[in-house]
Amino acid sequence: MNIPESIQESVKKEIDFFCKSLPKQPQELYEPMRYMLSLGGKNIRPALLLLTCKMFEGQIKDALPAAIGIELFHNFTLIHDDITDSSPLRRGKSTVHVKWNLNVALLSGDALLIKSYQQLNKTPSKYLPDIFNLFNEAALKVCEGQQFDMNYETKNKVTIEDYLTMISLKTAALFSASMGMGAILAGASTSDCNKMKVTGESLGMLFQLKDDVLDVFGKSKKTGKQTGGDIIQDKKTFLLLKAFELAKVKTKNELNSLIGNTKISPTEKVERVKKIYENLGVEEYANKQMQLYFSRAEKSLASIKAPEKDILLALAEDLISREA
Amino acid sequence: MNIPESIQESVKKEIDFFCKSLPKQPQELYEPMRYMLSLGGKNIRPALLLLTCKMFEGQIKDALPAAIGIELFHNFTLIHDDITDSSPLRRGKSTVHVKWNLNVALLSGDALLIKSYQQLNKTPSKYLPDIFNLFNEAALKVCEGQQFDMNYETKNKVTIEDYLTMISLKTAALFSASMGMGAILAGASTSDCNKMKVTGESLGMLFQLKDDVLDVFGKSKKTGKQTGGDIIQDKKTFLLLKAFELAKVKTKNELNSLIGNTKISPTEKVERVKKIYENLGVEEYANKQMQLYFSRAEKSLASIKAPEKDILLALAEDLISREA
Repeated sequence: MNIPESIQESVKKEIDFFCKSLPKQPQELYEPMRYMLSLGGKNIRPALLLLTCKMFEGQIKDALPAAIGIELFHNFTLIHDDITDSSPLRRGKSTVHVKWNLNVALLSGDALLIKSYQQLNKTPSKYLPDIFNLFNEAALKVCEGQQFDMNYETKNKVTIEDYLTMISLKTAALFSASMGMGAILAGASTSDCNKMKVTGESLGMLFQLKDDVLDVFGKSKKTGKQTGGDIIQDKKTFLLLKAFELAKVKTKNELNSLIGNTKISPTEKVERVKKIYENLGVEEYANKQMQLYFSRAEKSLASIKAPEKDILLALAEDLISREA
Repeated sequence: MNIPESIQESVKKEIDFFCKSLPKQPQELYEPMRYMLSLGGKNIRPALLLLTCKMFEGQIKDALPAAIGIELFHNFTLIHDDITDSSPLRRGKSTVHVKWNLNVALLSGDALLIKSYQQLNKTPSKYLPDIFNLFNEAALKVCEGQQFDMNYETKNKVTIEDYLTMISLKTAALFSASMGMGAILAGASTSDCNKMKVTGESLGMLFQLKDDVLDVFGKSKKTGKQTGGDIIQDKKTFLLLKAFELAKVKTKNELNSLIGNTKISPTEKVERVKKIYENLGVEEYANKQMQLYFSRAEKSLASIKAPEKDILLALAEDLISREA
């Protein structure tokens, strides 16, 4: 990823420090936090926050607490989402509720959410109300998106528009807040803060679309997730909804017979849906949709002239071409 | 309860307003919040916060956001604790995970926690860092206490001291923070803030001890909880630990045979343990322990002269003599 080494290092150092400073007891509360954070995420959200702060000539030290807060929040959502989705794997390792149990995953997730606020509260106090406002708004959107995502698993009529709204809540809101917060913490103008929020939103959208593609077409070894997890769970992803849009009657019927089908093995289900996706070329459509969000990001950054702008756009390209 | 009507009304009005201003969609996210808050809790924590604020001649309007934030946080813990404890009833009604399902209870609990921070963030900004510090510290203690509580269910050697430490985290920390926050929001001195934290801690301890007593000796119709829930779950409460301390060999063996016993019905288990408690007179010991915390509260309030002091002590007496 095109993340400057200095930024990667700062984030890594802070997260290490956070893990080391966690209490030892009760072990079942704090060990899962250390475990999740040790699995090595991409740290994209804090990187976007810090890059944005640099872009507006802010101080990295002022923005680091919020950057770490965002990453802790993201990890909290992963622990709880893995419960909801009954996911066995995360970054190639057992999920918290599998390695420990449901109650441990529930409570350590809660505590990690609180820890994210504790980090945020280290932000210079003049920025605090705005930072908390933006963060809380995004955090609620993430919950709303997750609920819609769950609802769509059993809802019959889900449109591509519904899906895009859902991921704008579940994923893009936090990307948007990350970049908005980075701008706030550099004292940027309201107009520039808004531009960065739009950029972040666009990056979040293309990130999630790519996640959906990788779920089916990625290599499990690289993604660290179960291949076809979305298919197994009947998630109404862009790929599935596009497939329905493109499919003729026969294929549509086949797709319908596969959704919610518990008579065939998960492996067979994944294979058959994947085959349909390939025949219809839905991956290409997803790529086009990602390019659309890339252009939107480019446009919202048009008036900004700073070396970090090119880094951001290169990073957006990485998000589209990534394999994990 | 000896809570001034004006304070009760303010809290009720704010909570009603909060419920009304929640979004309609997604329904599964916001309806459980409205449901929990409609079950009519005692609103003790916000009342203590506001009373303390008044005691130091602060403005109620400055303290209301934190008061509501504390109550929302408390309700979040109830939703998630009910999952952990598999509790069927809360305030005489179905718990959220029973009325909806686990995933709904998980996610709406998360969102309610975030909502509590959103309320807190309406606090006048000069108090914000201190309020968030105290709140976050207490919130983490609540999680730690809950984890110890879970661990003690299966741990063999739990002392009364362990138990008191556990409830000081799980329950008293939030009472302590409520009163500490009330003092902060009235601009009280650090020394007075600390006195109020100690008072709150003492009130929290006696509140929890009474809760343990009501679990066994209270009337289900009044408490709205399953009678003997703690016994069924093998919770190491003050009563059980005191019983072990007082019991002779034969009774000790009987108690040991009842803990973790899944061969007898829950009703029989509750009846037999209750009988042992009655024979040993453990309720009396619990009452003595509550009086001890009452005296501690009285002592920490000694130097403070304000009409609210007597209201607080009368409220503490109510907490000891309550039936629900």
